[in-house]
Amino acid sequence: MTGLSDWGVWLRHGLELAATVAFALSGAMTAARSRLDGVGVCAVVFLTAFGGGTLRDILLDIRPFFWVSHVEYLWGLLTLAVLAMIFMRQHHFELTERAIQLPDAIGLGLFAAIGVDVARAHDMPMLVAVLMGVITPVFGGVLRDLVCNRIPEAFIDHRPYAFCAFLGGWLYLGLEVLALPEWLVLSATVVFTAGLRLLALRFDWRMPVWRV
Amino acid sequence: MTGLSDWGVWLRHGLELAATVAFALSGAMTAARSRLDGVGVCAVVFLTAFGGGTLRDILLDIRPFFWVSHVEYLWGLLTLAVLAMIFMRQHHFELTERAIQLPDAIGLGLFAAIGVDVARAHDMPMLVAVLMGVITPVFGGVLRDLVCNRIPEAFIDHRPYAFCAFLGGWLYLGLEVLALPEWLVLSATVVFTAGLRLLALRFDWRMPVWRV
Amino acid sequence: MTGLSDWGVWLRHGLELAATVAFALSGAMTAARSRLDGVGVCAVVFLTAFGGGTLRDILLDIRPFFWVSHVEYLWGLLTLAVLAMIFMRQHHFELTERAIQLPDAIGLGLFAAIGVDVARAHDMPMLVAVLMGVITPVFGGVLRDLVCNRIPEAFIDHRPYAFCAFLGGWLYLGLEVLALPEWLVLSATVVFTAGLRLLALRFDWRMPVWRV
Repeated sequence: MTGLSDWGVWLRHGLELAATVAFALSGAMTAARSRLDGVGVCAVVFLTAFGGGTLRDILLDIRPFFWVSHVEYLWGLLTLAVLAMIFMRQHHFELTERAIQLPDAIGLGLFAAIGVDVARAHDMPMLVAVLMGVITPVFGGVLRDLVCNRIPEAFIDHRPYAFCAFLGGWLYLGLEVLALPEWLVLSATVVFTAGLRLLALRFDWRMPVWRV
Repeated sequence: MTGLSDWGVWLRHGLELAATVAFALSGAMTAARSRLDGVGVCAVVFLTAFGGGTLRDILLDIRPFFWVSHVEYLWGLLTLAVLAMIFMRQHHFELTERAIQLPDAIGLGLFAAIGVDVARAHDMPMLVAVLMGVITPVFGGVLRDLVCNRIPEAFIDHRPYAFCAFLGGWLYLGLEVLALPEWLVLSATVVFTAGLRLLALRFDWRMPVWRV
Repeated sequence: MTGLSDWGVWLRHGLELAATVAFALSGAMTAARSRLDGVGVCAVVFLTAFGGGTLRDILLDIRPFFWVSHVEYLWGLLTLAVLAMIFMRQHHFELTERAIQLPDAIGLGLFAAIGVDVARAHDMPMLVAVLMGVITPVFGGVLRDLVCNRIPEAFIDHRPYAFCAFLGGWLYLGLEVLALPEWLVLSATVVFTAGLRLLALRFDWRMPVWRV
């Protein structure tokens, strides 16, 4: 392996780790706000971090799951949940939410790209692949909110989140048609999706409200 | 293929389409009432229309899903969700609800028959097959209500809905024992289940209330 | 087969039956409190009794499910749900809740042991096996509460329930390392987990509250 590709592997692992931690922390905070106990916090942390990828793998009938072949991630999340319970205080929440915006956006882009990539490797049609690119990063948060008895934020927030992943998925497919190397397609999707999400947060973009 | 069987195929496709649209519209209206955003409406439309069949296929370990092998249905639902958001207004809801009662009842019968049929083709015992005949048409609405943070209507409404599919499933198995041709078994199940549901709505039948 | 192993098989079946009935009754009572109709009661009874094992089998990609190969359990639960609706009255609830504490604790231990056992037979890593040992007894109740639009009791109750299964799972793995015979490992896990749960109820132990 060359130094460059080594560097790419490490970068990807680093991004994956940062994104997973961001997802897990958003789970821990939602669980705390809903007054769950320690078991509930651990459950919501796992669901938020791995729910989307696991649903994708169930739908595509892929085994083993990510958290079975990389069981060190499960141990890490368990540790994270315990640390969050010990050290996290209500007045840290706003700070934490600000701090995880960047890794969360990167996770949105990264898991969207991975979702489309996995679906294409399993010969899924284009729209299904884009759907998997949306489900992978978004569905963990949906499960988190369902368990905490709230309407999923991704479905009611009006700020583009799943929609960024949707557009990123189509970008992936467009670049794929151009027969670009896979690492470039993946990187462009991540940068585009994460960038779009950060722009949307920065300028407070809203999805058009439709009158009911 | 003879003209008759062609006609049967077209009829079945037509009914399937009408029923899917009815399920999707009930999803769009519930999402609108819960004030979901555009992403939420699309998600609930998909869940309501395909949730039941997808759960059945996961339980029976069948791939590919209907919406993977017929990706044109996904495109259709996406279009429908966008059109519903543009044109649907609160004061249309009652009208729409009345208009979809017939296709919704047909969908109940059709998807119940298909559910039992698929389960029998996979050698499921009778009660499990009937259960699949209930899950296929009913579970999409259950997911719709869970996402919108309501107790599922099918579980609290007291008007027979799932119960019609349950009886229809047993009719299917009874006719199967008589070794009637499959198209006749399917048709009779659809007509019986849909008819029962329409009668229940027409005469406002209620399941017996049990004192708690 | 010797008399002893016959006796063991009957004991295990008897415990399984008692535990399933306890789980089903807790489903029926929660459904009644949420004012579900007859269909809802049956659905929640099924979900509570079989939801955990079914999710475990989906995650491990195991078929057929328990309730497909033992369809007599489905018939039994259907009968139980109908009987519960006829005979159960609000003022029986407290009595029933007291009466099912013992079989429910046994179910917690038994299904935890079975969950770890099945996961190990499918070569899962240790933490994943323990997780399956928690999901099997606990997740049915989680689904019950989600359908009844409540935050899952297992995640908010502060009394150790899932945590007993978690510790029991590690005991199983520890005894497995000692190469003890399987029946001994299983029995010790059941007794330890159920005993811990009963002690927790008896002395009103609480998980440490973490400040948020």
